[in-house]
Amino acid sequence: MTNYLTMEKQQLTQELAALQEQYQAFQAQGLKLDMSRGKPCKEQLDLSMDMLKINQVEDYIGDTGIDSRNYGYLEGMPEARRLFAQIMGVSPEEVMVGGNSSLNLMFNIVSLGFRYGFPESEKPWRDCEKRKFICPVPGYDRHFRVTEYFGFELVAVDMSETGPDMDQVEKLVQDPAVKGIWCVPTYSNPDGYCYSDQTVRRLAAMKTAASDFKIFWDDAYVVHFFGEKPDKVLNILDECRRCGNENRPVMFCSTSKITFPGAGVSSMAASKEMLDYILKNMFPMTISFDKMNQMRHVRFLKDLDGVVAHMKKHRAIILPKFETVLKALDEQVAPYGEIARWTRPRGGYFISLYTMPGCAKRTVQLCKDAGVVLTGAGAAYPYGKDPHDSNIRIAPTYPTVEELQKAMDLLCLSVRIATVEKLLAQ
Amino acid sequence: MTNYLTMEKQQLTQELAALQEQYQAFQAQGLKLDMSRGKPCKEQLDLSMDMLKINQVEDYIGDTGIDSRNYGYLEGMPEARRLFAQIMGVSPEEVMVGGNSSLNLMFNIVSLGFRYGFPESEKPWRDCEKRKFICPVPGYDRHFRVTEYFGFELVAVDMSETGPDMDQVEKLVQDPAVKGIWCVPTYSNPDGYCYSDQTVRRLAAMKTAASDFKIFWDDAYVVHFFGEKPDKVLNILDECRRCGNENRPVMFCSTSKITFPGAGVSSMAASKEMLDYILKNMFPMTISFDKMNQMRHVRFLKDLDGVVAHMKKHRAIILPKFETVLKALDEQVAPYGEIARWTRPRGGYFISLYTMPGCAKRTVQLCKDAGVVLTGAGAAYPYGKDPHDSNIRIAPTYPTVEELQKAMDLLCLSVRIATVEKLLAQ
Repeated sequence: MTNYLTMEKQQLTQELAALQEQYQAFQAQGLKLDMSRGKPCKEQLDLSMDMLKINQVEDYIGDTGIDSRNYGYLEGMPEARRLFAQIMGVSPEEVMVGGNSSLNLMFNIVSLGFRYGFPESEKPWRDCEKRKFICPVPGYDRHFRVTEYFGFELVAVDMSETGPDMDQVEKLVQDPAVKGIWCVPTYSNPDGYCYSDQTVRRLAAMKTAASDFKIFWDDAYVVHFFGEKPDKVLNILDECRRCGNENRPVMFCSTSKITFPGAGVSSMAASKEMLDYILKNMFPMTISFDKMNQMRHVRFLKDLDGVVAHMKKHRAIILPKFETVLKALDEQVAPYGEIARWTRPRGGYFISLYTMPGCAKRTVQLCKDAGVVLTGAGAAYPYGKDPHDSNIRIAPTYPTVEELQKAMDLLCLSVRIATVEKLLAQ
Repeated sequence: MTNYLTMEKQQLTQELAALQEQYQAFQAQGLKLDMSRGKPCKEQLDLSMDMLKINQVEDYIGDTGIDSRNYGYLEGMPEARRLFAQIMGVSPEEVMVGGNSSLNLMFNIVSLGFRYGFPESEKPWRDCEKRKFICPVPGYDRHFRVTEYFGFELVAVDMSETGPDMDQVEKLVQDPAVKGIWCVPTYSNPDGYCYSDQTVRRLAAMKTAASDFKIFWDDAYVVHFFGEKPDKVLNILDECRRCGNENRPVMFCSTSKITFPGAGVSSMAASKEMLDYILKNMFPMTISFDKMNQMRHVRFLKDLDGVVAHMKKHRAIILPKFETVLKALDEQVAPYGEIARWTRPRGGYFISLYTMPGCAKRTVQLCKDAGVVLTGAGAAYPYGKDPHDSNIRIAPTYPTVEELQKAMDLLCLSVRIATVEKLLAQ
């Protein structure tokens, strides 16, 4: 094999012609595959079907006699609060359990800040005209979208294997208009990185010019491990409390990728003062969340051990898919020189692929034209714009291994074509 | 029996002493009963337990192949949209199906108006400093609370047997700061009145100074009938369309009191343009609602006929309770002169009791002191203040008939005591 980076122009031209021939063969196959979102596959969904067999009245009555089938208990069923307290490593009094969407809880908290602010706010966020929000990149597009919708300027900081670049973050928070930061601390979306202890400690301890600076701590993948047990990220609420900043973080998680996406249970944790404030402001919003679904989850998953055991079943299904992606990249891209790099996550839902600058969009377009839809290049950046046009988010879970193999063959070929085109144009 | 209104003072004093003796006997019984909210009783909840037996994969796959267990389809499952279209009398394209709370949908629409306004808004509602909202009284406290939370002045208009006083409404909407009206058109909360055709037509046709005036049409009790079939209120969307005001109404309903309160399915209908605008603005808010619960409901209820058949089972449970309330009032209050009046609903969840002015709070307090918690007097009015201190909302569904009988004996006695005290103080 040859290193593209050291090839002569003529060789590159020949290579491109050969690659294009292969590409035309792909187009002829008429592939049709959507890998644009991190969706569980059918076999993963089937893992939780037994949860639907929970159908007796007594299943829906809590320990303390609460009938989950009726109105009330905005904060969630006590047993559901205990389950999520275990998952998030906090106490049940610091937890509320919501509906089917943790993104919706996050939206509600940003919306609350916008409308009224928080206990330590001088004024509502909406009255801070040039409000800004820190977005570690690459990150989760739907996070960024929420703050964009509420008129925040999205300020990118670089992600590394230990979390966001804390030098950049500590500098930014000296601006009182910077109101918060989006974090996916465990197996980050899309890199699959885990925040280091030092990152968590610096986030907790840093002085922020805004008294109402908030850390949105979305632990979406906290139990989504590929190894023997989950990686352990330091507890942000504990660390913030230690530094006298206990109202700073709001933690989120959900069972969307444990049981059913869109029919799971979401949860939120914060200091007692913050949680009381949040619940008080949730009162006008709804009578209560779906507590029957909470009970269904409690009966099915039982406790943290039950969750971890269940996640091992997911792992058995999806780990071969992650391995398929990595093997393809190792065998079909690596041999051509340092034309791309990719992450090797120990958990989560994605692999981040970084092409040479200026090649991501072209690569995604090539895949699309041959029938494989990837997440749009740039989607993991504020306003959908990757300044280097380099990052591609690979979501391996939904296709079958066979489909994924085909899609990866195409993706690897597309990376090579985009790279050679780029090198020829230089 | 004697008419209190024509009694001499001395007679009244004697009567009061006799009533107080009966009251003390009640206090000695140590009753403990919460009738504060319109909650279904256990037997009603049990009516829908068969819905939980829907647990096969194929039950959750829609006609068009959509797997309701996975992400996506913010607008709801097509079959759920068809079901709610039948219930609301609109077309499926005008319907979105949401999560467990229609109040939450209403909150979201007010929040959207506050944040951005609507297609026909000159500016967001939040930029209208003295914004106002029309609240037909008595009405639903949780409606009023939403608009209060968003800084609206709540403007009361009187309810009658045909709906809100339209002369008052038509006058109020000449103020461009008046942005909307709360309506419960069928079996209104708490009176149980149904809007007349003329009321609906005037609401649809009236000229409003605000281009973005909205009718919040909460048809919470549209199928909650006590007769042979539901009363039929004219369709507000049709009427508004006829008058060129098709973006004016937003219709809501839910299965909270059809299947499970807090674990039902909510829905919203509006003109295609409004619905598109709403869905576009819901996109940042969540990935999708709980479509598995939507499918569970579709499989269980099937269609409008199925819903009506199911509501007859509710009727069999709750109608005797409404009759118990009316019988008690007829036998234990009516004989003492025109000291109170009450509604005789043909459906819904409440009976409105109107005491002599200044007697409601005292009546509710007397009940509470003897162990029966009613909805707070005044709760059905903006800011919780009934200017006449006359209205009491009776929610008969939750207690057993025996408990209700006891509670009504106490309530009737309390009305008599409060009335006699009032007459003595005059």
